[in-house]
Amino acid sequence: MLNLVFVAGLVLFAISSAYFYSVGKNKAGFNSAFLVSFVTLISYVLMWQGNLTVVTQAGQPIYWTRWLFYALSCTLLMVEIAQLKQIQGGGLVQLLYLTAIVMVTGFLAARDLTAIRWVHFVLSSVAYVLLVIKVLSVKTAKSGWVNSYIFFGWTVFPVVFLLAPTGLGLLGAGVANLLYLLLDIYTKIVFNIQLGRTGS
Amino acid sequence: MLNLVFVAGLVLFAISSAYFYSVGKNKAGFNSAFLVSFVTLISYVLMWQGNLTVVTQAGQPIYWTRWLFYALSCTLLMVEIAQLKQIQGGGLVQLLYLTAIVMVTGFLAARDLTAIRWVHFVLSSVAYVLLVIKVLSVKTAKSGWVNSYIFFGWTVFPVVFLLAPTGLGLLGAGVANLLYLLLDIYTKIVFNIQLGRTGS
Amino acid sequence: MLNLVFVAGLVLFAISSAYFYSVGKNKAGFNSAFLVSFVTLISYVLMWQGNLTVVTQAGQPIYWTRWLFYALSCTLLMVEIAQLKQIQGGGLVQLLYLTAIVMVTGFLAARDLTAIRWVHFVLSSVAYVLLVIKVLSVKTAKSGWVNSYIFFGWTVFPVVFLLAPTGLGLLGAGVANLLYLLLDIYTKIVFNIQLGRTGS
Repeated sequence: MLNLVFVAGLVLFAISSAYFYSVGKNKAGFNSAFLVSFVTLISYVLMWQGNLTVVTQAGQPIYWTRWLFYALSCTLLMVEIAQLKQIQGGGLVQLLYLTAIVMVTGFLAARDLTAIRWVHFVLSSVAYVLLVIKVLSVKTAKSGWVNSYIFFGWTVFPVVFLLAPTGLGLLGAGVANLLYLLLDIYTKIVFNIQLGRTGS
Repeated sequence: MLNLVFVAGLVLFAISSAYFYSVGKNKAGFNSAFLVSFVTLISYVLMWQGNLTVVTQAGQPIYWTRWLFYALSCTLLMVEIAQLKQIQGGGLVQLLYLTAIVMVTGFLAARDLTAIRWVHFVLSSVAYVLLVIKVLSVKTAKSGWVNSYIFFGWTVFPVVFLLAPTGLGLLGAGVANLLYLLLDIYTKIVFNIQLGRTGS
Repeated sequence: MLNLVFVAGLVLFAISSAYFYSVGKNKAGFNSAFLVSFVTLISYVLMWQGNLTVVTQAGQPIYWTRWLFYALSCTLLMVEIAQLKQIQGGGLVQLLYLTAIVMVTGFLAARDLTAIRWVHFVLSSVAYVLLVIKVLSVKTAKSGWVNSYIFFGWTVFPVVFLLAPTGLGLLGAGVANLLYLLLDIYTKIVFNIQLGRTGS
């Protein structure tokens, strides 16, 4: 099952990379949708390869590299969200920093099998809450739909983290990584297609 | 003693994170003081956890993760210093690059137990001297007090590095990490309180 | 031979660091030529030290740290190339991202001894081709000579990677690292001297 999930992710994000590249080719500037998909593709190749994991006492593998790649892809997504929300300059830098902190502390929590991982998890959650408060507090005409993406997309990640072998271990590695794949599709592919349609 | 130092650092930087967040909440832009404290808090959690170290022949542990987190927190501090000194654009990018080089070569020197660590130490020192020359050469009305912070705060770090198990081993790990904690308080908390008072 | 190559690289890039620093000292802004040489100097110190390698079945060492340092030095070079080509804003960010992806996937391919390294190599090549298309598609009066640098300098790196122990293993580690040194001199020293002469 795990292998299947990673191959599915690998194939899907290869296709979405090609799609977003061709769609964005003639636009000026920065093709964030393509870069998000390409970074996620690399992440799935690395998880499929499978040699950078830790194994819990229950014998479940944790693919901690995922969170390092999220530090890259989610800062890119945050640039897109900030643009919709018209957050610029210092406010944008702060959002990118918080996003990176959420993911790097997530990586520290994922790599660690001791009880101290909960401290990392709390710090990651604090940074995430500060991030969400900041993003949701800005209201613009066009950005209403983004808030639901963040609520139903981004916020489910720490819930899966909590239930997965990284946290309480109520879900196995297979189910957890399948859920992450569905969340990746929702927040990185569906989101960018929607963003393209709203014409920004 | 080591454990006490790390718990003290952890608690202090948790408090200063909360303080700088609440003080800066309503300001526009970039809350650097908060991010510096929060990054340092993560660094202390990781050192308290204690599994990412190398041990010298004399049996002293070296917490090399410290220098990777300084690469983050000190580039943030450098943004603040550059703002006071009105260094912008390319000049600022150069300062941030040099700061990161100082800390990454510091990390390489700290991780390495062979004589080659002295080569890393020399490269780190060269980058640091170039950095200080650049910062001190710019004189503005408001920034006089910053120079003494750099002289008495930043410059003591490589001196401790030299005397600690990372260098000559004249100090033990406990004393060295206590001195680093005092320096962290001075350069990351006292500095930012002072910066807030001068109203920039 | 390997040791000789690394010492030669170390000495040459120490000299070029000092040269570019003194030449650029009085210019405003960002001394990229110096930083490229200094970062490369650190990279050669680390390879000379020699403890961060993987060894192939044929007994050849692979110095994978090289590619992490290229992620830093080549993004700096790309800033210089983009300036000549007058690529700014979002277009520049995309180029820097692609450059970093080329090098990080190169690092993943170099570290990996299994057949999956070819997947990383393909992803690195895709990112590189997209990068080159983007750079070559912009034509400005002054930038004709840059295209040949990229063709004859940058593009030889993946060819060496392919023939070296990282790929097919037709070249030994000694010859491969000698070729990389020559390419480093061409793309990081000769290029920056040429750039200084054309007066940009």
